[in-house]
Amino acid sequence: MKHFLSFAFLLTAISAFSQKEDSITISRIADEMLIRGRAYENLRELTKKVGARLTASPGFYKAEAWGQKALQDAGADKVYLQECMVPHWVRGGKDEAKYFVGSDAKGKTLDVLALGNSLGTGANGLTAPVILINSFEELEQRKDEVKGKIVFYNYKFNPRFIHTFQSYSDAVRFRGQGASRAARYGAVAVLVRSMTHATDNNPHTGAMNYNDSFPKIPALAVGIQDADKLAEVIQSNKSNNAAVKLFLKSNAKMLSDTVGHNVIGELTGSEFPNQIITVGGHLDSWDPAEGAHDDGAGCVHSIEVLRALKSIGYRPKRTIRVVLFANEENGGRGGSKYAEEAKNKNEQHILALESDEGGFTPRSFGFTMSKEKLEKVRTWLPLFSPYLVWQFNEGGGGADIAPLARVLGTPIAGFQPDSQRYFDIHHSRADVFENVNKRELELGALNIAALIYLVDKYGL
Amino acid sequence: MKHFLSFAFLLTAISAFSQKEDSITISRIADEMLIRGRAYENLRELTKKVGARLTASPGFYKAEAWGQKALQDAGADKVYLQECMVPHWVRGGKDEAKYFVGSDAKGKTLDVLALGNSLGTGANGLTAPVILINSFEELEQRKDEVKGKIVFYNYKFNPRFIHTFQSYSDAVRFRGQGASRAARYGAVAVLVRSMTHATDNNPHTGAMNYNDSFPKIPALAVGIQDADKLAEVIQSNKSNNAAVKLFLKSNAKMLSDTVGHNVIGELTGSEFPNQIITVGGHLDSWDPAEGAHDDGAGCVHSIEVLRALKSIGYRPKRTIRVVLFANEENGGRGGSKYAEEAKNKNEQHILALESDEGGFTPRSFGFTMSKEKLEKVRTWLPLFSPYLVWQFNEGGGGADIAPLARVLGTPIAGFQPDSQRYFDIHHSRADVFENVNKRELELGALNIAALIYLVDKYGL
Repeated sequence: MKHFLSFAFLLTAISAFSQKEDSITISRIADEMLIRGRAYENLRELTKKVGARLTASPGFYKAEAWGQKALQDAGADKVYLQECMVPHWVRGGKDEAKYFVGSDAKGKTLDVLALGNSLGTGANGLTAPVILINSFEELEQRKDEVKGKIVFYNYKFNPRFIHTFQSYSDAVRFRGQGASRAARYGAVAVLVRSMTHATDNNPHTGAMNYNDSFPKIPALAVGIQDADKLAEVIQSNKSNNAAVKLFLKSNAKMLSDTVGHNVIGELTGSEFPNQIITVGGHLDSWDPAEGAHDDGAGCVHSIEVLRALKSIGYRPKRTIRVVLFANEENGGRGGSKYAEEAKNKNEQHILALESDEGGFTPRSFGFTMSKEKLEKVRTWLPLFSPYLVWQFNEGGGGADIAPLARVLGTPIAGFQPDSQRYFDIHHSRADVFENVNKRELELGALNIAALIYLVDKYGL
Repeated sequence: MKHFLSFAFLLTAISAFSQKEDSITISRIADEMLIRGRAYENLRELTKKVGARLTASPGFYKAEAWGQKALQDAGADKVYLQECMVPHWVRGGKDEAKYFVGSDAKGKTLDVLALGNSLGTGANGLTAPVILINSFEELEQRKDEVKGKIVFYNYKFNPRFIHTFQSYSDAVRFRGQGASRAARYGAVAVLVRSMTHATDNNPHTGAMNYNDSFPKIPALAVGIQDADKLAEVIQSNKSNNAAVKLFLKSNAKMLSDTVGHNVIGELTGSEFPNQIITVGGHLDSWDPAEGAHDDGAGCVHSIEVLRALKSIGYRPKRTIRVVLFANEENGGRGGSKYAEEAKNKNEQHILALESDEGGFTPRSFGFTMSKEKLEKVRTWLPLFSPYLVWQFNEGGGGADIAPLARVLGTPIAGFQPDSQRYFDIHHSRADVFENVNKRELELGALNIAALIYLVDKYGL
């Protein structure tokens, strides 16, 4: 018993010593980021000098060049591109919409944006009676009324979910599947209420997908104030089924696939260079704004991890690989390619972490990994609580690293900042640098770096 | 042993049952606030229709009327005013500052605001050489150089503190004591670097105090970009001790004390009407903006607690008293009066809670009370974690309820939202409605209401 106790005491003492040492290293990372941080200035460059960077647009290739330079400046041992084929969707100019009540020929303008991957209406636009549909159940019940009409999905972002990503999961099906489900019953286009808690009228775009079994019809998003107005007009004219008409115009089209790249920078491991820890965000962004939170923040978080570890003189045991993924928004080809190459090269991946929930104040990380690994990770939580990460949740990751988990079984993690403001700006004109807070951004980078440091030091 | 176990089991079962019931009540409060909430529209009214409401200004009296109406509309059983004498400081127009290098007669403008309670310079302003002082230690070392000069305190908001209120406590001494400490050595005025992490140049005002032993000299705050510029100019001219001059102008003055009021609304307790639970914020605000976060948020949080409890049909056992305190910013007379009256009337106060850290996303509450009471409160924490309050901290309260703790020993609590953005806007032009997020505001009210409900139901 005496020996057992001594051994236990020894273990506790070692663990207390390590945590003390780790807490000192993490506070050096904190000083580096909060006093001499580069994340905010990097984000300013990416948003203001590069700007919007939809996959295959000129902005995206400019962002590839920016990413390489930023990784070099951050002190990467090695910077390179990983080629992948990417979709090439173009908006083709300003999207338009108007509604007309009865014999009104002038119409009233609605603020709209074509959904990503959607086909356009043709240059002359498209006019048809509109039918208000609040749910897919209602669509099924009223399927006989849909033919020749524009379906207006007015499903509301549910305010009862405390985590706004749950409201998003709940509502995003209308954006993703709405067009094909309506086309099945003869609809000629769809207009989808934006997925947001915002108090403004900005429309929010985002990817939609066609089901090849049905006609491909145009799909646009409308701002929520305009959605409320349109719903009210339709309701107050519902005695006359064809009283309200919609005019939609979009020049969107899908061109042939083209070449894009994941941008990668590494700190080579000193002891186990073949063991790879990935940390990344996605480089592409939607076109209405600057992709500041989505996902400029994730890119500069990841670059800052590498820069700060290098700056404090930390030499990683394992290879820390920063990946700025291509094409998360409308295809996910960058993430798929990364997993495919990892498999082809028989790479050994210890952990992949993604930051793609914005540059807001830190709250938690989510982990998709075995119970044993999660238990190990959870012993580190006390090191994070001074820096505002107070929970390590089960489940989490990111769209770009999910293929790695699927293909190689790699443990994955997602950074989970406060979610309240994310969908105010997401995929809209409001996703600009000015809506990112410097301290919140820096604190995100700090916690991600702490986690990467601990995984590098202790393995997983 | 068998009986003991059964009893323990029974206790656990009761507790599990209560927590289930409480969780249902709290989710009804959540629905009321997130779906049909009034906090955001109340705040819009207070900020846009009333606006700035410095103690004893016309805006403050307008706010008193607004507060009474808002409490009536929220369903208070009783609304009344509690009179108190308040200080009457006036800014008296636009504050001005310029610096002059060498023989430059035109000067360069600095963005400044006189500190609250400061005396002005007189109508012609005041010009004197400036001395750059980075700390009180430096002031003591260089006290012989101060006479006849304007002391420019350039102490920086420390980015290493994770909780920004710590940076504030650290820096605010220069605002509070800086004038008198410099006047002691013959300074003619002081200019104080604003207490902020902001990336803009807005000056941040706030209360200062004179030590009656020394001459009363004018004190102004300067925006941090201008502070950096001025410090640089002084540094680069330091070979010539009198090369840089400052011109300051402020018409500020302190008038005689006048009458103000705490605005109070109550839900009368059904079982223990004499047991009082106070929840409040302060109604006064600084004059450069609208006092949206400081402390419009705390006012509408508190009113929303009363409204939502009433709306869901909850009948409190104890008296829930919403107090919109007068004069927190430059005197604290409302809080003092409230405690004094409580003592005179021999009132029984169970808990006082204040919300005065802004309308940001919830993180924690802080409690100043006995260990036993804190332990009891902590058993409720699981009920809060779905709503983003993840910690109950030891220590906390608010400036308006501190006198109650001092005078009557009342247990007090403070709502602690995320602190990263607070000092970006605090006491500056940026403290406007547009910088408050609807969801974040509502989630604050929700957690405060949950705590008030539990204290009402179970006592403390």
